Amino acid sequence: MASLRGVAQPELSKKLFKIIKSENHAIGAYESASRERISITSQLSDWGEATGDESVSDISDKLGVLLSELGEQEDVFAQNLEDYRGVLKQIRNTESSVQPSRDHKAKIGDEIAKLKYKEPTSPKIVQLEQELVRAEAQNLVAEAQLTNVTRQKLKEAYDMHFAATIERAEKQIMLARHGRRLLNLLDDTPVVPGDTRPAFEHGSQARQILNDAEEDLREWTPNLEPIPSSATAMGVNLMPAQIGTGTVGTSFSGHEGEPAAIEAGSTTGETSYTRDVSGSSTIAQPESTSSYQLP
Amino acid sequence: MASLRGVAQPELSKKLFKIIKSENHAIGAYESASRERISITSQLSDWGEATGDESVSDISDKLGVLLSELGEQEDVFAQNLEDYRGVLKQIRNTESSVQPSRDHKAKIGDEIAKLKYKEPTSPKIVQLEQELVRAEAQNLVAEAQLTNVTRQKLKEAYDMHFAATIERAEKQIMLARHGRRLLNLLDDTPVVPGDTRPAFEHGSQARQILNDAEEDLREWTPNLEPIPSSATAMGVNLMPAQIGTGTVGTSFSGHEGEPAAIEAGSTTGETSYTRDVSGSSTIAQPESTSSYQLP
Repeated sequence: MASLRGVAQPELSKKLFKIIKSENHAIGAYESASRERISITSQLSDWGEATGDESVSDISDKLGVLLSELGEQEDVFAQNLEDYRGVLKQIRNTESSVQPSRDHKAKIGDEIAKLKYKEPTSPKIVQLEQELVRAEAQNLVAEAQLTNVTRQKLKEAYDMHFAATIERAEKQIMLARHGRRLLNLLDDTPVVPGDTRPAFEHGSQARQILNDAEEDLREWTPNLEPIPSSATAMGVNLMPAQIGTGTVGTSFSGHEGEPAAIEAGSTTGETSYTRDVSGSSTIAQPESTSSYQLP
Repeated sequence: MASLRGVAQPELSKKLFKIIKSENHAIGAYESASRERISITSQLSDWGEATGDESVSDISDKLGVLLSELGEQEDVFAQNLEDYRGVLKQIRNTESSVQPSRDHKAKIGDEIAKLKYKEPTSPKIVQLEQELVRAEAQNLVAEAQLTNVTRQKLKEAYDMHFAATIERAEKQIMLARHGRRLLNLLDDTPVVPGDTRPAFEHGSQARQILNDAEEDLREWTPNLEPIPSSATAMGVNLMPAQIGTGTVGTSFSGHEGEPAAIEAGSTTGETSYTRDVSGSSTIAQPESTSSYQLP
């Protein structure tokens, strides 16, 4: 995908291309927040030690552990966003792959219009019109694949995005609440000059808080309202999966090196996309004169 | 404070100075994440519109609103961290202001040692020893102020930090859960070529989800275990607040342009820092010969 950067994008995928790029910056910001947070925690522990105050030293060291885990969660979040971004790319790739089909259809239409004006009796017009029917059929498949992929992957992408948001939030709440328990172990009663602070007596409690936090993190499981998808019924051809009897008819794969998995299988039956074709022939065979009702 | 950047820090405040600087980077990362997130949301809405799919357009537009609010919360978080950072600066400033007191005490000690070696009978030794007693008394006050400020402000700073973490998390969970409800309104049942998608019928439900999210945000209130502080009994002199009868004695303010609020008031009574001083004189007056038990 990296090679697509800087290369002119097809019109259709330009917007999503830009979103995916911006998301990369957002993810970078979270990674950077994570790194900073983690680097601060050891500094905090060092500072606490340097105060020479046993209580401050112990508390700041353990605060550092919790804050470091808070920072780790920012990185987990960033990685989850990376997965979400990958799903957006699947929409973008389909968009890119549909563009040539649109262009092809438009180009043949233009050629016919031009020819009808210049040479209204040219026999090439009939040939081009047959070609147009095929191009339109192919494009219909492409557009169906696009809407199918767009809706399914949009749901999937933001399902992941929101799940990642909730995961980070729930884990950070647990950590922050343990952090607050830790702070309660620090006695901030002011002293008068010459007083010595009593020894820190909460070492084992502080240790226990870290253990509790660790256990909470380990036991955390997502608790989400599911987002049901009807797209599970979608076949590898990005069409509704059906009990088809036909074999692969229209191949829509391989446009300009795009992922080759996009294939429209020929199917039969009432809801099949071939239902408007007279007879049972597969659509868009080179010599077919399909009777598609085109929009 | 900005003017302190790049200026050599007293040894005592070097570590915290670095932490405060690193926190600035972390805060910057959250601000940047917020900006990116918010910029993406309008792009998402534009993209949805460009798909020409009414359902995708409506859902992506409203997803954009929720994502934008998620982004705003990153910025609120960053601003809260800025407040936390301000509290760390209070510790750092006290550290900076205590350094000269330590240095002064050490310097007089050195001079005495040098003089005792070179001119053991010098009358200046007596004078310097009186000065040392005063310097030590002053430093005792400074160190008490430092430990009082350190403990109180450490608690306060991380109280704020964790409260900010919990606030962002709780609000983002609400928003993300509403986002998931929104996704459920998008039908991703795959279609066959030539099919037209049914009209989007969930417009009012989608609108309602945004209203719910808005209301949840408005009604959110922090629900935190309090972190009690005993430092509320601390006076403006950074010492235990007491029913004192004395007036301000030792002034500890104004070291190298540091905030001038640090003053040690003279107090009386059993737990007062003047309890070891014979008589009722305030400590560290230029001519006093305090009987402090020094460490």
